[in-house]
Amino acid sequence: MKSFKEMSKEELLEQKAQLEKRVEEFKAMNLSLNMTRGKPAPNQLSMSDDMYTDLSKEGFKAEDGSDTRNYGVATGLPEVKKLFAEVIGARNADNIFIGNGSSLNLMFDTIMRAMVFGEHDSPKPWSQVEGRKWLCPVPGYDRHFKVTETCGFELIPVPLKEDGPDMDIVEKLVKDPTVLGMWNVPCYTNPDGYVYSEEVCKRLASMKTAAPDFRLFWDNAYCVHHLYSEESKQGRIPDILGLCEDAGNPSRVYEFASSSKVTFASAGISCLAANEENYKYAVKIIGVQTIGSNKVNQLAHVRFIPNLDALKAHMAKHAEILRPKFELTLDILEKELTGTDAASWHKPLGGYFISVYTLPGTAKAVIAKCNELGVAFTPAGATYPYGNDPDDSNIRVAPSFPSLEDINKAVEVFAVCVKLSAVEKLLSV
Amino acid sequence: MKSFKEMSKEELLEQKAQLEKRVEEFKAMNLSLNMTRGKPAPNQLSMSDDMYTDLSKEGFKAEDGSDTRNYGVATGLPEVKKLFAEVIGARNADNIFIGNGSSLNLMFDTIMRAMVFGEHDSPKPWSQVEGRKWLCPVPGYDRHFKVTETCGFELIPVPLKEDGPDMDIVEKLVKDPTVLGMWNVPCYTNPDGYVYSEEVCKRLASMKTAAPDFRLFWDNAYCVHHLYSEESKQGRIPDILGLCEDAGNPSRVYEFASSSKVTFASAGISCLAANEENYKYAVKIIGVQTIGSNKVNQLAHVRFIPNLDALKAHMAKHAEILRPKFELTLDILEKELTGTDAASWHKPLGGYFISVYTLPGTAKAVIAKCNELGVAFTPAGATYPYGNDPDDSNIRVAPSFPSLEDINKAVEVFAVCVKLSAVEKLLSV
Repeated sequence: MKSFKEMSKEELLEQKAQLEKRVEEFKAMNLSLNMTRGKPAPNQLSMSDDMYTDLSKEGFKAEDGSDTRNYGVATGLPEVKKLFAEVIGARNADNIFIGNGSSLNLMFDTIMRAMVFGEHDSPKPWSQVEGRKWLCPVPGYDRHFKVTETCGFELIPVPLKEDGPDMDIVEKLVKDPTVLGMWNVPCYTNPDGYVYSEEVCKRLASMKTAAPDFRLFWDNAYCVHHLYSEESKQGRIPDILGLCEDAGNPSRVYEFASSSKVTFASAGISCLAANEENYKYAVKIIGVQTIGSNKVNQLAHVRFIPNLDALKAHMAKHAEILRPKFELTLDILEKELTGTDAASWHKPLGGYFISVYTLPGTAKAVIAKCNELGVAFTPAGATYPYGNDPDDSNIRVAPSFPSLEDINKAVEVFAVCVKLSAVEKLLSV
Repeated sequence: MKSFKEMSKEELLEQKAQLEKRVEEFKAMNLSLNMTRGKPAPNQLSMSDDMYTDLSKEGFKAEDGSDTRNYGVATGLPEVKKLFAEVIGARNADNIFIGNGSSLNLMFDTIMRAMVFGEHDSPKPWSQVEGRKWLCPVPGYDRHFKVTETCGFELIPVPLKEDGPDMDIVEKLVKDPTVLGMWNVPCYTNPDGYVYSEEVCKRLASMKTAAPDFRLFWDNAYCVHHLYSEESKQGRIPDILGLCEDAGNPSRVYEFASSSKVTFASAGISCLAANEENYKYAVKIIGVQTIGSNKVNQLAHVRFIPNLDALKAHMAKHAEILRPKFELTLDILEKELTGTDAASWHKPLGGYFISVYTLPGTAKAVIAKCNELGVAFTPAGATYPYGNDPDDSNIRVAPSFPSLEDINKAVEVFAVCVKLSAVEKLLSV
């Protein structure tokens, strides 16, 4: 198709008329579709339904003989730590704390500890650092941004490229001693699905930061969430804990992962992995905070998924369900939008999102049009700090939850709204 | 038996010789017994073993039709809120947040929110209040004390009487604007097993505090943990949320409860109950902290224990197991110690502990002697702020976990050590 940008006014008006006709057709359908959230679909969840069924029959003893039903073993079952260490590729399982379902909770609590007590290498608690700042690769995960915004950090956007954050910019920004940390979703960034390159990871591990207590928050949320079984089509990132250690910055990173999109979104287990100093410092305070996380759930998980091979087999089943949804979404985008210059997108190999860049200045209009037609998308701007996408361009599409039939209709509506908004924009200038 | 205090030196020496003979007998037994922690016994835990067995068969839908396996319903399932409201006697279930297993975690997080953000009625965040103080009824729960100690509060001990904290003292102390809160285990205090009277509760609710953001932390840990089925032998406390509301201090209290000693110590559910303002303020931040607590576990709990009657029936089964252990402990104490003036204790009607007051200046010696004989007790002083019992007298005895046979031996050892330490003390002065 010819680029909208190259069309004459007459051609654009012709396009507009055609697109408005399609909008009228959609309107008549009284649609009610939802593409807002990266939720697993019911048939993905059902794969784990029997995780608890045989617990009682098989008994509640962990590998070390401890009774998972009772108090004790506060930092998590050793076999669960071992599994998470394998998942994230950590050199050992010694410095891993096992949390409850929400890894976000571990991240929030980690920031809160630093706010009140500082890190082990902090000149002072973070709550006392005037003008504290946090680096936010954009587009990114709104709930990450909200954590540091709530804790009074100024959120500094950093452009994200296909191989990770723009490191020239990052290396400059961390020369400011009030820059205390940085969010990262290194494998299948949310929402673009980019994968940090080894070089980017190495630069993050070795860069010189003015703040001695600068921390990377490494949310390894999707490290086993591949859409394709061929290894060549799978994102792979290095072990950041090892890289930081090798670079002489062993305390630079807190790494997080969870089973939220492996078993149950609401009832998983999570981990906080660190170097020895960060771990000891964190666990000393966590030991005051809690008697420990749900160990029966840990046991159920590690019985259901006892090792990395079992995990890979389980994730392949997720991929069987997710891949057609991603491919259908991408097919429709391609069919409707290729050549129009009305939008661009990256084809992700994993994760939960497809990130679409509409013609600058049109994302809000696109979402509004979709909503009017009964199709809900994440609000425009949600993927930027303070909900403010300066280009008004990025839209996060979440194809995991709806059925193929719903996706078919919803993404068509979306693409038409993208085009119509682009045409209207071009006609208005 | 004649009081040690009234004995002559000769009589005391005679006692000493007899007691030392018994100690030698114990030594020969090579005991290894543990009375340190308020842990449920395995047969108590087994009562809940099948809590998860039929989850898959019965499906994962909550009463509102939501899928508990997926994201959403972040503050907890309405049917679980309703049950907790009944348990604590709250007027409604609107302002209850459901947490994971550790209610301590909810308490710690509540303090941390106040530290960083302040309360909704705070002049400033608590971390900025110089010389901040916290009232600690003594003896009390060491993990409570540790939370406020860690957050930089000076811990102010308040004598606990059979009807609750000494309110004349409390009312004086809260005239200090740097006194920001107070720990409470109102029903079956830990470790004494006292029950706050209605009058004490009303005074706590209505007293004038200098700090506008003063908070009672109301850890209703044992409100259904009675040892006897007769209502006349059950502790009962009024609804503190209602009392505070009625007294015109609706934001004064955060109330906590959990199922840790109902189902599984390591895998329960918990609640934070508040008035509307505190609740809204807390949940706004909790909504940034977490995607929510484990809802599948909530569902399993409320299916297993659907209402207050079912809970009472379940707790009666716990009592069947616990009551003989408490009674055996008390019987031995009575048999060995009555009349000696070497120790005193309260006979609790519920909870998890028996609190023994040895002759002042002997608690550490008693524990050391017991340890030498292979019988572990909670370290002396643990029930006081900073681990410092000024009288060196209080010892927390936890009879829940060991078998009757072990209790029989351990408490006998304990009583002999209490007597020997008293005799030695009296001989030394």
